[in-house]
Amino acid sequence: MRRVRLGMVGGGEGAFIGAVHRMAARLDDRYELLAGALSSDPQRAAASAAAIGLPRSYDDYREMARVEASRADGIEAVAIVTPNHLHAPIATAFLEAGIHVICDKPLAVSLDEGEALAKLARDKNRVFAVTYTYTGYPLVRHARALVRNGALGDIRVVQVEYAQDWLSMPVETQANRQAAWRTDPALAGPAGCLGDIGTHAYQLAEYVTGMRPSQLSAEATTFVPGRRVDDHVQAMLRYANGARGMLWASQVAAGEENALRLRVYGTKAGLMFDQQAPNELWFTPVGGASERITRGRVQSPEALRATRVPAGHPEGYIEAFAQVYADAAGCIALGTTQGDEWLTTVEDGVAGLRFVEAVLRSSAGDGEWVGVE
Amino acid sequence: MRRVRLGMVGGGEGAFIGAVHRMAARLDDRYELLAGALSSDPQRAAASAAAIGLPRSYDDYREMARVEASRADGIEAVAIVTPNHLHAPIATAFLEAGIHVICDKPLAVSLDEGEALAKLARDKNRVFAVTYTYTGYPLVRHARALVRNGALGDIRVVQVEYAQDWLSMPVETQANRQAAWRTDPALAGPAGCLGDIGTHAYQLAEYVTGMRPSQLSAEATTFVPGRRVDDHVQAMLRYANGARGMLWASQVAAGEENALRLRVYGTKAGLMFDQQAPNELWFTPVGGASERITRGRVQSPEALRATRVPAGHPEGYIEAFAQVYADAAGCIALGTTQGDEWLTTVEDGVAGLRFVEAVLRSSAGDGEWVGVE
Amino acid sequence: MRRVRLGMVGGGEGAFIGAVHRMAARLDDRYELLAGALSSDPQRAAASAAAIGLPRSYDDYREMARVEASRADGIEAVAIVTPNHLHAPIATAFLEAGIHVICDKPLAVSLDEGEALAKLARDKNRVFAVTYTYTGYPLVRHARALVRNGALGDIRVVQVEYAQDWLSMPVETQANRQAAWRTDPALAGPAGCLGDIGTHAYQLAEYVTGMRPSQLSAEATTFVPGRRVDDHVQAMLRYANGARGMLWASQVAAGEENALRLRVYGTKAGLMFDQQAPNELWFTPVGGASERITRGRVQSPEALRATRVPAGHPEGYIEAFAQVYADAAGCIALGTTQGDEWLTTVEDGVAGLRFVEAVLRSSAGDGEWVGVE
Amino acid sequence: MRRVRLGMVGGGEGAFIGAVHRMAARLDDRYELLAGALSSDPQRAAASAAAIGLPRSYDDYREMARVEASRADGIEAVAIVTPNHLHAPIATAFLEAGIHVICDKPLAVSLDEGEALAKLARDKNRVFAVTYTYTGYPLVRHARALVRNGALGDIRVVQVEYAQDWLSMPVETQANRQAAWRTDPALAGPAGCLGDIGTHAYQLAEYVTGMRPSQLSAEATTFVPGRRVDDHVQAMLRYANGARGMLWASQVAAGEENALRLRVYGTKAGLMFDQQAPNELWFTPVGGASERITRGRVQSPEALRATRVPAGHPEGYIEAFAQVYADAAGCIALGTTQGDEWLTTVEDGVAGLRFVEAVLRSSAGDGEWVGVE
Repeated sequence: MRRVRLGMVGGGEGAFIGAVHRMAARLDDRYELLAGALSSDPQRAAASAAAIGLPRSYDDYREMARVEASRADGIEAVAIVTPNHLHAPIATAFLEAGIHVICDKPLAVSLDEGEALAKLARDKNRVFAVTYTYTGYPLVRHARALVRNGALGDIRVVQVEYAQDWLSMPVETQANRQAAWRTDPALAGPAGCLGDIGTHAYQLAEYVTGMRPSQLSAEATTFVPGRRVDDHVQAMLRYANGARGMLWASQVAAGEENALRLRVYGTKAGLMFDQQAPNELWFTPVGGASERITRGRVQSPEALRATRVPAGHPEGYIEAFAQVYADAAGCIALGTTQGDEWLTTVEDGVAGLRFVEAVLRSSAGDGEWVGVE
Repeated sequence: MRRVRLGMVGGGEGAFIGAVHRMAARLDDRYELLAGALSSDPQRAAASAAAIGLPRSYDDYREMARVEASRADGIEAVAIVTPNHLHAPIATAFLEAGIHVICDKPLAVSLDEGEALAKLARDKNRVFAVTYTYTGYPLVRHARALVRNGALGDIRVVQVEYAQDWLSMPVETQANRQAAWRTDPALAGPAGCLGDIGTHAYQLAEYVTGMRPSQLSAEATTFVPGRRVDDHVQAMLRYANGARGMLWASQVAAGEENALRLRVYGTKAGLMFDQQAPNELWFTPVGGASERITRGRVQSPEALRATRVPAGHPEGYIEAFAQVYADAAGCIALGTTQGDEWLTTVEDGVAGLRFVEAVLRSSAGDGEWVGVE
Repeated sequence: MRRVRLGMVGGGEGAFIGAVHRMAARLDDRYELLAGALSSDPQRAAASAAAIGLPRSYDDYREMARVEASRADGIEAVAIVTPNHLHAPIATAFLEAGIHVICDKPLAVSLDEGEALAKLARDKNRVFAVTYTYTGYPLVRHARALVRNGALGDIRVVQVEYAQDWLSMPVETQANRQAAWRTDPALAGPAGCLGDIGTHAYQLAEYVTGMRPSQLSAEATTFVPGRRVDDHVQAMLRYANGARGMLWASQVAAGEENALRLRVYGTKAGLMFDQQAPNELWFTPVGGASERITRGRVQSPEALRATRVPAGHPEGYIEAFAQVYADAAGCIALGTTQGDEWLTTVEDGVAGLRFVEAVLRSSAGDGEWVGVE
Repeated sequence: MRRVRLGMVGGGEGAFIGAVHRMAARLDDRYELLAGALSSDPQRAAASAAAIGLPRSYDDYREMARVEASRADGIEAVAIVTPNHLHAPIATAFLEAGIHVICDKPLAVSLDEGEALAKLARDKNRVFAVTYTYTGYPLVRHARALVRNGALGDIRVVQVEYAQDWLSMPVETQANRQAAWRTDPALAGPAGCLGDIGTHAYQLAEYVTGMRPSQLSAEATTFVPGRRVDDHVQAMLRYANGARGMLWASQVAAGEENALRLRVYGTKAGLMFDQQAPNELWFTPVGGASERITRGRVQSPEALRATRVPAGHPEGYIEAFAQVYADAAGCIALGTTQGDEWLTTVEDGVAGLRFVEAVLRSSAGDGEWVGVE
């Protein structure tokens, strides 16, 4: 099994998500990390590269794209793990150079930017994966398979939520680097909690149900005084088939750690998934007993292909992340995402930006119902 | 400890909630059930009375109110457990006769009816308890005490939901008596799921937080074809202090049994209560470890006075119901609800009707924000 | 439905279990409590009787047995809720008087005493219920039905445990009345934790599996200095069919409240019941997904007949206790326990004493294997 | 951070644990896998090496030890992932060649073999890690820190169990390779379930409590007809400080997946860890509320150093395994295990063999109490 030659932009010392991307790339041994522009600060870029034993370090991502594209042994794909405002320019540079892209979410800081990226990826015929991590969980995939197989019947209700408490206080003023950029509109874009975790919730619901809402009514709120972006979002959803739903995302939900939870109710049965207990999925028919489906005992091929160790040996967040990387490696090897509907791509990234834009529009309109797609 | 002389209207053979009221009245031995008009059908009334060994049976509640009021050993209080549309006329008859009232919720089928009842209870100076059962749980009371004591800080977010699946199918057309009257607007009023369980969710949130929303945006939906009332409600809430919230009630949530769950998040800590696991309450400070507070180990006097058996010996729904009855007995003995803020009364019943009215108004206005109180 | 005329011995003011027995007797309205000798202290007996509005109060249980037996409207059954050492003399007095007995466990303080009681009950042809409370849970009965129906296959392993922490400290020296008599061999008998909760664990395992061990190897330990009875028991079990098991009971298990838990594993499936979450039962086939069976959705008639309110409306310890009383009422009405195999009787009480005796014998023999039945 | 040059013996195609070891070695990027004798079948060894892109493949581990020891860029450490009977000869060959060892458990198939390995490792002054995977969980380390810090007080009771169901049927006769070697005494040694998972349970209890039992009374049982090793073990434990305990391990516990659970009770508090939910640890003081301690919010340095991602982002089995590898890498870099008491070593492997030997001895003696250490 050939390893994909990988580069990385962002993810220098002190960054959280860059290290996670590298673990994810490493776990299944489908990548070799060969080059990087780990920081926009050249000294930090060099030091970070040395610390992780990176073969080729660049000061500037544009130079990296140019040089790597010209080498016979240059990188085939780049992982973009910078603050949000740089996703689009960096992805553009690498796509232009013919290099596949694996990009963190949200895809960009505006819908226009996102749509341009999607068009460019199509034009250049490059793989463009967006790391909606939670879609990599085996039981999320099993849930999707259950919906597709009709085990739930027609879907009536979708309840999705993502609650954290780490922004309950104004930590962005207290030397918390993660908080600082995520609450700075110049770096994170106009959406705070909405972009950071609301998009995850939105995508998870779509991934499992196969449906995106046609309309939403929403309110984005900022609780912490002085904060420049929203830290709380609530929304009601309407689907084209008549289903209804609610979406809640908060970074000021005291006591919550990383509580992404999806519940889907159909005419025949309901299911529940909580990413904090990702080795179980609950399935309950109308009037019946709940079934606790565990990762690794499940036989749907979609879940099994995303599973590394047997039932009872818990897998977690890094494994889910690794699955997104493994799926991307498969697509990169084939040169196309056609045929791998399990990988979230630039199109899903654009859908996330449409959701962000719709929430901000509805919220500005005092919660009026607005179209989403 | 003197027992309160109690009568009952409704609750004949085959009724669900009447039997529960009787168990609740019996458990703590604070009542003697002496008289009843258990059914509007005289034969069924008599047979039902005989089956439970009721001393005095009446064919008609008006006659019962008149006769009992005139007896030296007549009932002091009446429990009303009929379909909703009869709550107001029956309560009126007994209040007029000077008899205290314990009434199931929703209080009435319109806000006007409810307000008239509240006025009458005040004018007659009678105790008027409304059986919001879930307020009788010791840990609900402990949660209320925690909020009052400031353990949560300022409240920012309220999430309350009540999900069931027993109306997922059109069972009202299939000889299910409970479903039949609850989905008949002539008997249940204009609100279906909204009145039946939405009001419970609304009241529980108020009971614990001490806050009612100032505005809401809502949508009531009917999923089951042919059903004449709503079976699903979703709402967003705004509170005067800037807090935000969501309320969801559904009787078509496949797989859910009786999932009433409240989460409250403040600036300092959050709490969670699920009535399906009523012997535990979760309390978590920002950034800290969750504490699983169990009934019976808790020392707040409000929780202890609602507790019968030690920690680890589960109490449940009947005990919560009994607590409402026990509290009402205490008030009846004193002839006033003044001073027992732990008992839900006709004022809470009216608040529930205001909520119902606001949801229907907002829903008719395509989810526009409307005032509640 | 006729009410059984009931008397009570023990259960005066400050007693825990007497009040629970009265709630249990009251809940389903199958009893009238008419007479009692609530305390061996005449003043306390009278005051306790007055406090609960008891019609007839006696200073002495022997007089009570004699007088009640002679009245046309005398009690039909007596509930015995005294410390253990009085169970046998009191039960003997009432049986001799032709009165049915409902007795707390352990049945007596020696196996000889217990066997004599069993013989007397047979000779007098009286109902003799022993309140193994936990057998009253609907899902315990459903578990029993599952085993009987062969859903587990042949049973291989039984794991039962009962852990508490309330005797972690020497509270018997600190004005804790419950602790004082339970740790006094003159009142509780030679077994402490073993008799108090070990017998519950032992009986629960038998009730569900239908099997009693043929041999056991055990060790009873006293952890708290100065304590006069055991506060911790561990045992290994051998069954006649080759099954193996373990039993653990402790009153010094720091942090545990009332953790009675049973797990049974067969050749086809396993089940788990935890009395602290008595509204659910876990059933898992070999290699399969766990099914969470909830009280009230279950269709086995044995579980349904012990159920009062629908699924999702939790029942608890008092309801389980009430079920034992309800079953006893049914037997008393018929004058026999023949045909109600769901009620635990004096024979089960004797089996508990055999278990106690075997554990003490094995423990004295350094854990040697000893025969049980 | 320099990577350790690693070799592997065993772990060819179709092996389960070899692939896990490789993921564990890869996750934290502390190793490069450079050489291997992946199978005793030369063709399979070569094919397996090619499939994973291994630089240097050997037909025979002896040759591998000799050649690698002679290369300047030869491996520094070898991972041994063969069936149990080969652990000792392979480890001996590499130790003799001066190469550090990372070996799966059980360490060997007899206590003599194990003690000889321990002596050789000391003589050669080589690191010898034994992969007791579950000691790598951050919350296991936090539990150990809690015990050391005295948060539990003096330990009174240890309850440890490890239950699986995958050997409920005679799968070893049905082309299940994992089952085949694990139930063949020639390959697995005289202990089946006892060696495979009983040793994990035993070691986990010691790791957290810091205590090994002084005596045990045990019974090993074989339930599946025709099976040549035990598939079920039960034991009672006595500790030198007077504590008592029970250990249960079963591979025929229908419905259980990989249920390794430890409970420790002290004079002040108790704790509970279940490896199937490894992101939480329960801590409860006598008479108090349970605290749910979650990985990543915990501040003990021992837990934090074993943590990769923040609270709420679950880690699992592979991460725990990786931690053992990371700790071993740290020791190998220093050339000693002195000072890293968090790594389980050959001494722990020997202790496991002493436990196995004691259980078999007690079981042969009808459960007599035997000395362990």
